[in-house]
Amino acid sequence: MDADAKKTVLRMIPYGLYIMTAEDKNGEIAAATVNWVTQTSFDPPLVVVGVKIESGAYEISKRAGSFALNMLAKDQQGLAFSFFKPAERDGHTINGEPYRAGDNGAPILENTPASVECSIKQIVEMGDHHVFVGEVTGAELRKAPQGRADEAILHMRELGENVFYGG
Amino acid sequence: MDADAKKTVLRMIPYGLYIMTAEDKNGEIAAATVNWVTQTSFDPPLVVVGVKIESGAYEISKRAGSFALNMLAKDQQGLAFSFFKPAERDGHTINGEPYRAGDNGAPILENTPASVECSIKQIVEMGDHHVFVGEVTGAELRKAPQGRADEAILHMRELGENVFYGG
Repeated sequence: MDADAKKTVLRMIPYGLYIMTAEDKNGEIAAATVNWVTQTSFDPPLVVVGVKIESGAYEISKRAGSFALNMLAKDQQGLAFSFFKPAERDGHTINGEPYRAGDNGAPILENTPASVECSIKQIVEMGDHHVFVGEVTGAELRKAPQGRADEAILHMRELGENVFYGG
Repeated sequence: MDADAKKTVLRMIPYGLYIMTAEDKNGEIAAATVNWVTQTSFDPPLVVVGVKIESGAYEISKRAGSFALNMLAKDQQGLAFSFFKPAERDGHTINGEPYRAGDNGAPILENTPASVECSIKQIVEMGDHHVFVGEVTGAELRKAPQGRADEAILHMRELGENVFYGG
Protein backbone atom coordinates (compact mmCIF):
# COMPACT_ATOMS: atom_id res chain seq x y z
CA MET A 1 0.00 0.00 0.00
CA ASP A 2 1.24 3.47 -0.92
CA ALA A 3 1.59 5.27 2.43
CA ASP A 4 1.25 8.75 0.94
CA ALA A 5 -1.90 7.79 -0.96
CA LYS A 6 -3.36 6.19 2.17
CA LYS A 7 -2.68 9.33 4.18
CA THR A 8 -4.19 11.70 1.65
CA VAL A 9 -7.23 9.55 0.90
CA LEU A 10 -8.06 9.04 4.60
CA ARG A 11 -7.66 12.79 5.15
CA MET A 12 -10.52 13.35 2.71
CA ILE A 13 -12.91 12.27 5.49
CA PRO A 14 -14.27 15.50 7.00
CA TYR A 15 -14.51 15.89 10.75
CA GLY A 16 -16.14 18.09 13.33
CA LEU A 17 -14.63 18.68 16.77
CA TYR A 18 -16.00 17.52 20.10
CA ILE A 19 -14.92 17.49 23.73
CA MET A 20 -15.44 13.97 25.00
CA THR A 21 -16.06 13.95 28.76
CA ALA A 22 -16.64 11.38 31.47
CA GLU A 23 -16.57 11.01 35.22
CA ASP A 24 -16.06 7.71 36.98
CA LYS A 25 -17.35 6.58 40.38
CA ASN A 26 -14.22 7.83 42.12
CA GLY A 27 -14.78 11.33 40.83
CA GLU A 28 -11.99 11.16 38.27
CA ILE A 29 -12.83 13.25 35.24
CA ALA A 30 -11.82 13.17 31.61
CA ALA A 31 -12.23 15.87 28.98
CA ALA A 32 -10.44 15.53 25.65
CA THR A 33 -10.81 16.90 22.15
CA VAL A 34 -11.81 14.17 19.69
CA ASN A 35 -12.85 14.14 16.04
CA TRP A 36 -13.30 10.51 14.98
CA VAL A 37 -17.06 10.47 15.41
CA THR A 38 -19.97 9.19 13.34
CA GLN A 39 -23.57 8.21 13.91
CA THR A 40 -24.17 4.52 13.08
CA SER A 41 -27.88 3.92 13.77
CA PHE A 42 -31.14 5.87 13.96
CA ASP A 43 -33.06 3.46 16.22
CA PRO A 44 -31.65 3.16 18.74
CA PRO A 45 -29.50 6.22 18.11
CA LEU A 46 -25.90 5.03 18.17
CA VAL A 47 -22.66 6.91 17.72
CA VAL A 48 -19.13 5.61 17.35
CA VAL A 49 -16.05 7.37 18.69
CA GLY A 50 -12.45 6.34 18.05
CA VAL A 51 -10.75 6.85 21.43
CA LYS A 52 -6.99 6.79 21.94
CA ILE A 53 -5.94 3.89 24.14
CA GLU A 54 -4.10 4.66 27.38
CA SER A 55 -5.65 8.14 27.44
CA GLY A 56 -7.66 9.58 30.31
CA ALA A 57 -10.74 9.74 28.11
CA TYR A 58 -10.34 6.05 27.33
CA GLU A 59 -9.77 4.79 30.86
CA ILE A 60 -12.31 6.97 32.62
CA SER A 61 -15.11 6.57 30.05
CA LYS A 62 -14.59 2.83 30.06
CA ARG A 63 -14.81 2.68 33.84
CA ALA A 64 -17.82 4.99 33.90
CA GLY A 65 -19.56 3.05 31.15
CA SER A 66 -20.71 6.35 29.70
CA PHE A 67 -19.53 9.63 28.23
CA ALA A 68 -20.70 12.88 26.70
CA LEU A 69 -19.75 14.55 23.45
CA ASN A 70 -19.79 18.33 23.72
CA MET A 71 -20.05 19.86 20.25
CA LEU A 72 -17.76 22.82 19.62
CA ALA A 73 -19.06 25.96 17.93
CA LYS A 74 -17.44 27.73 14.99
CA ASP A 75 -15.47 30.17 17.15
CA GLN A 76 -14.35 27.69 19.82
CA GLN A 77 -10.89 26.89 18.49
CA GLY A 78 -9.54 27.87 21.91
CA LEU A 79 -11.52 25.13 23.60
CA ALA A 80 -10.38 22.56 21.06
CA PHE A 81 -6.73 23.37 21.77
CA SER A 82 -7.33 23.65 25.52
CA PHE A 83 -8.62 20.07 25.68
CA PHE A 84 -5.70 18.63 23.76
CA LYS A 85 -4.03 19.09 27.19
CA PRO A 86 -4.77 16.95 30.27
CA ALA A 87 -8.07 17.71 31.99
CA GLU A 88 -7.68 19.56 35.28
CA ARG A 89 -10.69 20.21 37.45
CA ASP A 90 -10.87 23.31 39.62
CA GLY A 91 -14.20 23.58 41.41
CA HIS A 92 -16.92 23.66 38.80
CA THR A 93 -14.51 24.18 35.94
CA ILE A 94 -12.33 21.89 33.81
CA ASN A 95 -9.37 23.59 32.15
CA GLY A 96 -11.12 26.83 33.07
CA GLU A 97 -14.42 25.89 31.41
CA PRO A 98 -17.59 25.79 33.56
CA TYR A 99 -19.41 22.47 33.63
CA ARG A 100 -22.18 20.63 35.36
CA ALA A 101 -22.85 16.90 35.57
CA GLY A 102 -25.10 15.49 32.85
CA ASP A 103 -27.81 12.93 33.58
CA ASN A 104 -25.24 10.14 33.13
CA GLY A 105 -22.65 11.95 35.25
CA ALA A 106 -20.42 13.07 32.36
CA PRO A 107 -19.40 16.74 32.47
CA ILE A 108 -21.45 19.01 30.23
CA LEU A 109 -19.38 22.03 29.21
CA GLU A 110 -21.83 24.89 29.53
CA ASN A 111 -20.17 27.16 26.97
CA THR A 112 -20.56 24.60 24.19
CA PRO A 113 -23.71 24.86 22.04
CA ALA A 114 -24.84 21.23 22.27
CA SER A 115 -24.08 17.83 23.71
CA VAL A 116 -25.14 14.22 23.61
CA GLU A 117 -24.83 11.77 26.47
CA CYS A 118 -24.05 8.18 25.65
CA SER A 119 -24.07 4.80 27.33
CA ILE A 120 -21.22 2.56 26.15
CA LYS A 121 -22.72 -0.57 24.57
CA GLN A 122 -19.53 -2.07 23.21
CA ILE A 123 -15.83 -1.34 22.81
CA VAL A 124 -14.09 -2.87 19.81
CA GLU A 125 -10.52 -3.32 21.01
CA MET A 126 -8.58 -2.99 17.79
CA GLY A 127 -5.80 -0.61 16.85
CA ASP A 128 -4.19 2.36 18.58
CA HIS A 129 -7.62 3.85 19.23
CA HIS A 130 -10.57 1.65 20.13
CA VAL A 131 -14.10 1.90 18.80
CA PHE A 132 -16.57 3.03 21.45
CA VAL A 133 -20.15 2.28 20.39
CA GLY A 134 -22.44 4.52 22.44
CA GLU A 135 -26.20 4.68 22.64
CA VAL A 136 -27.45 8.24 22.83
CA THR A 137 -29.41 8.58 26.05
CA GLY A 138 -29.67 12.34 26.21
CA ALA A 139 -29.24 15.39 24.02
CA GLU A 140 -29.21 19.08 24.80
CA LEU A 141 -29.19 22.00 22.43
CA ARG A 142 -28.09 25.11 24.28
CA LYS A 143 -27.71 27.29 21.22
CA ALA A 144 -29.74 26.56 18.09
CA PRO A 145 -27.68 26.56 14.89
CA GLN A 146 -28.09 29.43 12.44
CA GLY A 147 -28.59 27.56 9.18
CA ARG A 148 -27.44 23.99 8.79
CA ALA A 149 -26.48 22.12 11.94
CA ASP A 150 -23.41 20.59 10.28
CA GLU A 151 -22.11 24.05 9.44
CA ALA A 152 -22.55 25.32 13.02
CA ILE A 153 -19.96 22.93 14.40
CA LEU A 154 -16.23 23.68 14.43
CA HIS A 155 -14.58 21.81 11.56
CA MET A 156 -11.07 20.35 11.62
CA ARG A 157 -9.94 22.67 8.81
CA GLU A 158 -10.81 25.65 11.01
CA LEU A 159 -8.06 24.69 13.48
CA GLY A 160 -5.44 25.58 10.87
CA GLU A 161 -4.65 24.95 7.23
CA ASN A 162 -2.25 22.11 8.05
CA VAL A 163 -4.06 20.61 11.03
CA PHE A 164 -5.32 17.06 10.53
CA TYR A 165 -6.01 14.12 12.78
CA GLY A 166 -6.27 11.16 10.50
CA GLY A 167 -4.50 9.59 7.56
CA MET B 1 -34.87 12.62 25.73
CA ASP B 2 -36.06 15.54 23.60
CA ALA B 3 -36.42 14.06 20.09
CA ASP B 4 -36.01 17.41 18.33
CA ALA B 5 -32.86 18.23 20.29
CA LYS B 6 -31.44 14.77 19.59
CA LYS B 7 -32.10 15.19 15.86
CA THR B 8 -30.52 18.62 15.62
CA VAL B 9 -27.51 17.80 17.78
CA LEU B 10 -26.72 14.60 15.86
CA ARG B 11 -27.06 16.53 12.60
CA MET B 12 -24.19 18.73 13.72
CA ILE B 13 -21.82 15.86 12.83
CA PRO B 14 -20.41 16.70 9.38
CA TYR B 15 -20.20 14.01 6.70
CA GLY B 16 -18.57 13.38 3.39
CA LEU B 17 -20.09 11.09 0.75
CA TYR B 18 -18.77 7.75 -0.42
CA ILE B 19 -19.88 4.93 -2.69
CA MET B 20 -19.41 1.71 -0.75
CA THR B 21 -18.82 -1.21 -3.09
CA ALA B 22 -18.31 -4.95 -2.79
CA GLU B 23 -18.41 -8.11 -4.87
CA ASP B 24 -19.02 -11.55 -3.41
CA LYS B 25 -17.77 -14.91 -4.65
CA ASN B 26 -20.87 -15.43 -6.75
CA GLY B 27 -20.25 -12.22 -8.65
CA GLU B 28 -23.02 -10.30 -6.93
CA ILE B 29 -22.12 -6.65 -6.65
CA ALA B 30 -23.10 -3.86 -4.29
CA ALA B 31 -22.63 -0.13 -4.74
CA ALA B 32 -24.41 2.27 -2.41
CA THR B 33 -23.98 5.85 -1.26
CA VAL B 34 -23.00 6.03 2.41
CA ASN B 35 -21.94 8.83 4.74
CA TRP B 36 -21.53 7.37 8.22
CA VAL B 37 -17.76 6.95 8.02
CA THR B 38 -14.87 7.70 10.34
CA GLN B 39 -11.29 6.59 10.77
CA THR B 40 -10.73 4.91 14.16
CA SER B 41 -7.05 3.94 14.22
CA PHE B 42 -3.77 4.96 12.61
CA ASP B 43 -1.90 1.67 13.09
CA PRO B 44 -3.32 -0.46 11.73
CA PRO B 45 -5.42 1.98 9.71
CA LEU B 46 -9.04 1.24 10.58
CA VAL B 47 -12.25 2.83 9.38
CA VAL B 48 -15.79 2.35 10.59
CA VAL B 49 -18.86 2.47 8.35
CA GLY B 50 -22.46 2.39 9.54
CA VAL B 51 -24.18 0.10 7.01
CA LYS B 52 -27.96 -0.27 6.72
CA ILE B 53 -29.06 -3.80 7.57
CA GLU B 54 -30.90 -5.81 4.93
CA SER B 55 -29.31 -3.69 2.20
CA GLY B 56 -27.30 -5.03 -0.72
CA ALA B 57 -24.22 -3.27 0.55
CA TYR B 58 -24.67 -4.97 3.91
CA GLU B 59 -25.26 -8.50 2.67
CA ILE B 60 -22.72 -8.54 -0.12
CA SER B 61 -19.90 -6.84 1.83
CA LYS B 62 -20.47 -9.19 4.73
CA ARG B 63 -20.30 -12.23 2.45
CA ALA B 64 -17.26 -10.87 0.65
CA GLY B 65 -15.51 -9.98 3.91
CA SER B 66 -14.31 -6.80 2.26
CA PHE B 67 -15.42 -3.58 0.62
CA ALA B 68 -14.19 -0.36 -0.92
CA LEU B 69 -15.07 3.23 -0.19
CA ASN B 70 -14.98 5.39 -3.30
CA MET B 71 -14.67 9.05 -2.30
CA LEU B 72 -16.91 11.44 -4.22
CA ALA B 73 -15.55 14.71 -5.58
CA LYS B 74 -17.12 18.13 -5.11
CA ASP B 75 -19.08 18.02 -8.38
CA GLN B 76 -20.25 14.41 -8.15
CA GLN B 77 -23.73 14.98 -6.71
CA GLY B 78 -25.08 12.96 -9.65
CA LEU B 79 -23.15 9.89 -8.57
CA ALA B 80 -24.32 10.28 -4.98
CA PHE B 81 -27.96 10.28 -6.09
CA SER B 82 -27.39 7.54 -8.65
CA PHE B 83 -26.15 5.14 -5.98
CA PHE B 84 -29.07 5.77 -3.66
CA LYS B 85 -30.77 3.42 -6.19
CA PRO B 86 -30.09 -0.33 -6.47
CA ALA B 87 -26.80 -1.24 -8.11
CA GLU B 88 -27.18 -2.62 -11.62
CA ARG B 89 -24.17 -3.94 -13.47
CA ASP B 90 -23.96 -3.70 -17.24
CA GLY B 91 -20.64 -4.98 -18.55
CA HIS B 92 -17.90 -2.93 -16.94
CA THR B 93 -20.29 -0.34 -15.57
CA ILE B 94 -22.47 -0.08 -12.47
CA ASN B 95 -25.39 2.32 -12.77
CA GLY B 96 -23.60 3.62 -15.85
CA GLU B 97 -20.31 4.26 -14.06
CA PRO B 98 -17.17 2.48 -15.30
CA TYR B 99 -15.40 0.31 -12.76
CA ARG B 100 -12.67 -2.25 -12.39
CA ALA B 101 -12.05 -4.76 -9.62
CA GLY B 102 -9.80 -3.58 -6.80
CA ASP B 103 -7.14 -5.80 -5.25
CA ASN B 104 -9.73 -7.15 -2.81
CA GLY B 105 -12.33 -7.62 -5.55
CA ALA B 106 -14.52 -4.64 -4.63
CA PRO B 107 -15.48 -2.40 -7.57
CA ILE B 108 -13.37 0.73 -7.92
CA LEU B 109 -15.38 3.46 -9.63
CA GLU B 110 -12.91 4.97 -12.04
CA ASN B 111 -14.50 8.42 -12.19
CA THR B 112 -14.13 8.97 -8.46
CA PRO B 113 -10.97 10.74 -7.28
CA ALA B 114 -9.88 8.28 -4.61
CA SER B 115 -10.70 5.02 -2.87
CA VAL B 116 -9.70 2.81 0.01
CA GLU B 117 -10.07 -0.95 0.10
CA CYS B 118 -10.90 -2.57 3.41
CA SER B 119 -10.96 -5.99 4.98
CA ILE B 120 -13.83 -6.43 7.44
CA LYS B 121 -12.36 -7.21 10.87
CA GLN B 122 -15.56 -7.05 12.88
CA ILE B 123 -19.25 -6.22 12.53
CA VAL B 124 -20.99 -4.82 15.60
CA GLU B 125 -24.57 -5.98 15.17
CA MET B 126 -26.49 -3.24 16.93
CA GLY B 127 -29.22 -0.96 15.66
CA ASP B 128 -30.80 -0.42 12.24
CA HIS B 129 -27.35 -0.04 10.70
CA HIS B 130 -24.44 -2.15 11.86
CA VAL B 131 -20.89 -1.03 12.53
CA PHE B 132 -18.41 -2.42 9.99
CA VAL B 133 -14.86 -2.13 11.26
CA GLY B 134 -12.56 -2.34 8.26
CA GLU B 135 -8.78 -2.45 8.03
CA VAL B 136 -7.48 -0.37 5.15
CA THR B 137 -5.53 -2.71 2.88
CA GLY B 138 -5.22 -0.45 -0.14
CA ALA B 139 -5.60 3.18 -1.12
CA GLU B 140 -5.57 4.88 -4.49
CA LEU B 141 -5.53 8.57 -5.28
CA ARG B 142 -6.59 9.10 -8.87
CA LYS B 143 -6.92 12.86 -8.63
CA ALA B 144 -4.87 14.79 -6.08
CA PRO B 145 -6.89 17.33 -4.07
CA GLN B 146 -6.42 21.02 -4.75
CA GLY B 147 -5.92 22.37 -1.25
CA ARG B 148 -7.14 20.44 1.78
CA ALA B 149 -8.16 16.84 1.23
CA ASP B 150 -11.24 17.21 3.45
CA GLU B 151 -12.49 20.04 1.27
CA ALA B 152 -12.03 18.07 -1.97
CA ILE B 153 -14.68 15.52 -1.01
CA LEU B 154 -18.40 16.04 -1.64
CA HIS B 155 -20.06 17.11 1.61
CA MET B 156 -23.57 16.20 2.67
CA ARG B 157 -24.66 19.85 2.65
CA GLU B 158 -23.76 20.01 -1.05
CA LEU B 159 -26.54 17.55 -1.88
CA GLY B 160 -29.13 20.18 -0.94
CA GLU B 161 -29.90 22.62 1.84
CA ASN B 162 -32.35 20.23 3.50
CA VAL B 163 -30.58 16.93 2.81
CA PHE B 164 -29.39 15.08 5.90
CA TYR B 165 -28.75 11.46 6.76
CA GLY B 166 -28.51 11.37 10.50
CA GLY B 167 -30.29 12.71 13.54
